[in-house]
Amino acid sequence: MSQPQNHYKADLRDFEFLLFEQFRLDELLSKPPFENWGRDEVRMALEESCEFAQKVLGPLNVVGDRVGCKLENGRVITPPGFKEAWKALFEAGWRVLSEREEVGGQGAPHTLQALVEEMFSGANCAFMTYPGLAIGAVHLIDTFGTPELKRLFVPKMYGGKWGGTMCLTEPQAGSDVGAATTSARRNPDGTYSIKGTKIFITGGDHDCAENIVHLVLARVEGAPPGTKGLSLFVVPKIRVNPDGSLGEPNDVKVIGLEHKMGLHGSATCVLQFGEEDRCIGYLCGTKENEGIRQMFQMMNYARIGVGVQGLAVASAAYLCALDYAKERKQGSSVKEWKNPLAPRVPIIEHPDIRRMLLEMKSKVEGIRALIVKLTMHQDRARVLQGKDDDKVAYHLGQVDLLTPIVKAYGSEQAFRICELAMQVYGGAGYIRDYPIEQYMRDSRVFSIYEGTNHIQALDLVGRKLTQDGGRHAQAFISDMSRFIEENGRHPVFGQAIRTLGQAKEALANSAFQLLQWFQSGEIERVPLHANRFLEMMSETAVGWLLLDAAIIADEAQQKCEKGSRDWAFYEGKKQAALFFASTFLPEVPLKAQIMASGDRSALEIPVESFAMV
Amino acid sequence: MSQPQNHYKADLRDFEFLLFEQFRLDELLSKPPFENWGRDEVRMALEESCEFAQKVLGPLNVVGDRVGCKLENGRVITPPGFKEAWKALFEAGWRVLSEREEVGGQGAPHTLQALVEEMFSGANCAFMTYPGLAIGAVHLIDTFGTPELKRLFVPKMYGGKWGGTMCLTEPQAGSDVGAATTSARRNPDGTYSIKGTKIFITGGDHDCAENIVHLVLARVEGAPPGTKGLSLFVVPKIRVNPDGSLGEPNDVKVIGLEHKMGLHGSATCVLQFGEEDRCIGYLCGTKENEGIRQMFQMMNYARIGVGVQGLAVASAAYLCALDYAKERKQGSSVKEWKNPLAPRVPIIEHPDIRRMLLEMKSKVEGIRALIVKLTMHQDRARVLQGKDDDKVAYHLGQVDLLTPIVKAYGSEQAFRICELAMQVYGGAGYIRDYPIEQYMRDSRVFSIYEGTNHIQALDLVGRKLTQDGGRHAQAFISDMSRFIEENGRHPVFGQAIRTLGQAKEALANSAFQLLQWFQSGEIERVPLHANRFLEMMSETAVGWLLLDAAIIADEAQQKCEKGSRDWAFYEGKKQAALFFASTFLPEVPLKAQIMASGDRSALEIPVESFAMV
Repeated sequence: MSQPQNHYKADLRDFEFLLFEQFRLDELLSKPPFENWGRDEVRMALEESCEFAQKVLGPLNVVGDRVGCKLENGRVITPPGFKEAWKALFEAGWRVLSEREEVGGQGAPHTLQALVEEMFSGANCAFMTYPGLAIGAVHLIDTFGTPELKRLFVPKMYGGKWGGTMCLTEPQAGSDVGAATTSARRNPDGTYSIKGTKIFITGGDHDCAENIVHLVLARVEGAPPGTKGLSLFVVPKIRVNPDGSLGEPNDVKVIGLEHKMGLHGSATCVLQFGEEDRCIGYLCGTKENEGIRQMFQMMNYARIGVGVQGLAVASAAYLCALDYAKERKQGSSVKEWKNPLAPRVPIIEHPDIRRMLLEMKSKVEGIRALIVKLTMHQDRARVLQGKDDDKVAYHLGQVDLLTPIVKAYGSEQAFRICELAMQVYGGAGYIRDYPIEQYMRDSRVFSIYEGTNHIQALDLVGRKLTQDGGRHAQAFISDMSRFIEENGRHPVFGQAIRTLGQAKEALANSAFQLLQWFQSGEIERVPLHANRFLEMMSETAVGWLLLDAAIIADEAQQKCEKGSRDWAFYEGKKQAALFFASTFLPEVPLKAQIMASGDRSALEIPVESFAMV
Repeated sequence: MSQPQNHYKADLRDFEFLLFEQFRLDELLSKPPFENWGRDEVRMALEESCEFAQKVLGPLNVVGDRVGCKLENGRVITPPGFKEAWKALFEAGWRVLSEREEVGGQGAPHTLQALVEEMFSGANCAFMTYPGLAIGAVHLIDTFGTPELKRLFVPKMYGGKWGGTMCLTEPQAGSDVGAATTSARRNPDGTYSIKGTKIFITGGDHDCAENIVHLVLARVEGAPPGTKGLSLFVVPKIRVNPDGSLGEPNDVKVIGLEHKMGLHGSATCVLQFGEEDRCIGYLCGTKENEGIRQMFQMMNYARIGVGVQGLAVASAAYLCALDYAKERKQGSSVKEWKNPLAPRVPIIEHPDIRRMLLEMKSKVEGIRALIVKLTMHQDRARVLQGKDDDKVAYHLGQVDLLTPIVKAYGSEQAFRICELAMQVYGGAGYIRDYPIEQYMRDSRVFSIYEGTNHIQALDLVGRKLTQDGGRHAQAFISDMSRFIEENGRHPVFGQAIRTLGQAKEALANSAFQLLQWFQSGEIERVPLHANRFLEMMSETAVGWLLLDAAIIADEAQQKCEKGSRDWAFYEGKKQAALFFASTFLPEVPLKAQIMASGDRSALEIPVESFAMV
């Protein structure tokens, strides 16, 4: 049995459920700023973009992996078909769905854009890194740039004529961004001369666009050390004339292309700026040393994007494994285990396969719910902008709080889900004839790039928990408490909701413990347990959203005919929530207990005691 | 910073600790059957084989991955250097260290052989699959073959002139071995004509040996269905004349070579037997329908071998990550988090890196202890053979019980450890300049081949737990209980040992619960929780062995000068045990609780409810 590798699938029924049944997008539609968007428009956009994912992007996923990128004469050649896909993507307007109309966008909700991104990245994750970064980069110029920069760069970048990158990492400055040494020297004409080497630059060069606009963190001579002395520069690959036409090359060289475990279709470059002292950069805005704050806008956008990538690949892997499990026959029913003549059954009838599929389902749908929750907070903030400052602050606070969770949990679990998908396939999963091994290789970097998952955990415990006096974290907990109170006696889900209540208590206690460690000088315990705390918060949040979905599904199911398609859908929602609640929520109090146990072994073991080699 | 990829390292101090301090190999040395082996001989063998791993095998690991195997004119070409390495391996006698002298072996303890295997597979896992299967195959002929088969095949296979394979899987018969349809027809001369297709045959062809001897499961015409109707045949690639010389080809064709995620240096073949009706096989032994029982000998050998592969790659990945963490400078100490001018430190000073390294250390050393425990039971049984039947039965029972655990936990955790190693490297881990991404790709198949980990779990709960009236499982539990009783009040480890006690209680209760499910007709709950139970038993066993090591280390440390190399080694043992006990042992009672919770979601969700696609 072989499987067509380019047949991407999306569960649009789940999208519909999240948008219209669980997160009530309707409340925002058909009025400003979404006056052009009603239910039908949202549905149509999802259906059409799914078709685009299946027909245009999906067929290029394997070729991207097998052919990969090539560096020839200092220029990156993308895999066959990528150039055409880029053109088709921008021409169809998919990339700017949620942008405002004056830049060519369609003013759609972020939530819709995120689900479209899920499908596109699910169909071809490597390809989507190019347009993903291009839009992230233009947002920065659009937000912080001078009018002149905006005039020259913004329309071309939104339109896909030019691409974009973010350039943070240097050989000696990875997680420690503040150690960057790329320098910027002021020129008399107001421009800057940029000099330095940046590594791990995704899409650092490619042949899909005429020009590439690098957003580069560099230190102006005399600026303070650390992140506070970094400024952000707009550094085009080819200089731009005042009339917007392309000028001469700007002394930005691709001096290396990484050979990676996966994501081969995405060019990861080493860039050298100013080797010949002819690299010109434009300060993004008017003030120096604002770079890290500005870059955070793009990083947050990119971090949510990585969570979406995780969801995308995880969902694709899950749906492939589900298909395989329905088709592949192997062994007989466990109830007939002593009868060698019992009929062979599809492996989806085996309990262990069902366990793996339900773990994948609950996590995929849980992460999708988490992402939709985040983008709905963005959309609600957009609607309330200028009308209700308190509510806007609440919604944006939840976005901030959820960003590291979406990035880290989404990426970590994506890999875990690919691993389960491979186990469902067995030996077939390990070979290239099936899509899983590529999903697995592609997804492994999600836990590393755009800030490793430990950086996310530090962001959560060191910044987000205490932001605005801890108000966002408190709001998150009290939203959940309200749900638990309202539904604690639910006839079907009461017990699961009490389990959620225990997880919530444990989470709140551990948050308090982290604060105590900050204050009591036991600071090194904070990073020691930061990842664990992030997991606890992720699992609790996912458990909450799945149970919330289940209660909605339970009510809706009662109006359905048993055995109907909708009935089956709601049943799946209910079972996924029960599974997650009984399998993963009990991990949360255990993790709290481990945090509280006071074990200091990892801190105390002498370096030389790790191994005698 | 780049790292030489062929520099394999082994922690020989840990080997020495396990052999002479924890598992008291001395008691067996210098007397039959190990009369040629004393401490010095064991040490020398370890040192020399480590050198062989570093100098001969390690340098071929990357080339094996990059060049891979090729199928040309129906023959497999192995990567450059493999042929020479094969020759050197057999010439040096490493492959038959633990075999008896009359077949060219050196009669060494299995335990020594296992540690030598660890180093060889750690240096080059793909290469070692060829000699590994060759020896597994000759064991079968050596044990079950007729005198004539032994005369013709055994010496050449032990000597490495001929290779060997095991041929079980067919396209429609993967985990379900009993569904095999490869047929065997009796010929008048006592041979059989074999016909059928076998897939996923590791080393199904290669150019290291003159001939390859396939051990093939096939069904004689008229035999019963299922595994009980399978017979085992010796099917050489090239026929063998009565004088032992090679005759004509035997109609065994390589019709495909799989393209895999990893382990590229190991040829995974599709073999077609008897396409021209000229494939001759010899029944292994004198009775038909004994094939599955016979093959189990090789499968058990191979399953322990997969556990060793897991340990091997995990240890290599851990030691690479440790080196990297000591050298790579990034960020400043957490205690200086507000000072951008604080000096950069090696990342091993960061708590989260230390946490990951200590998880890797505790698991690597725990799995190594588990494997040494298993092989020491083999060696003790060998010593007691014919002297004390009860004790032999006890030791062989522990081998049976531990085999699925070593295979499944060793393989599962190997991948997890590679994942942590990659996280320690960050972006560098994802690129091919460093060894981790290959380790990760190579190790992923361990959970799948030689019986998926679920097959191992079913073997444990469905066969091993109740074998001989449950005697082996009971002995395992009471050995552990004795340890807990004796050390429960230990001044340093008392608390950790009480945690172990709780894990042991939970494990025993869950074992009882599984038996109840078998008896009460709730049979489908057994496979649903079989993997979880295997994890519980693995974690409890590893916790036990690490704590046992820690108590020995604590005592030995008191005789060492503080700061000495030995002092540091023992300190590492103590901290690893504390870490594992506080981080992983508490998982065991939680898993028992999940097993007992009665959640039936995975069993009850209708197939159509998994997704609406």
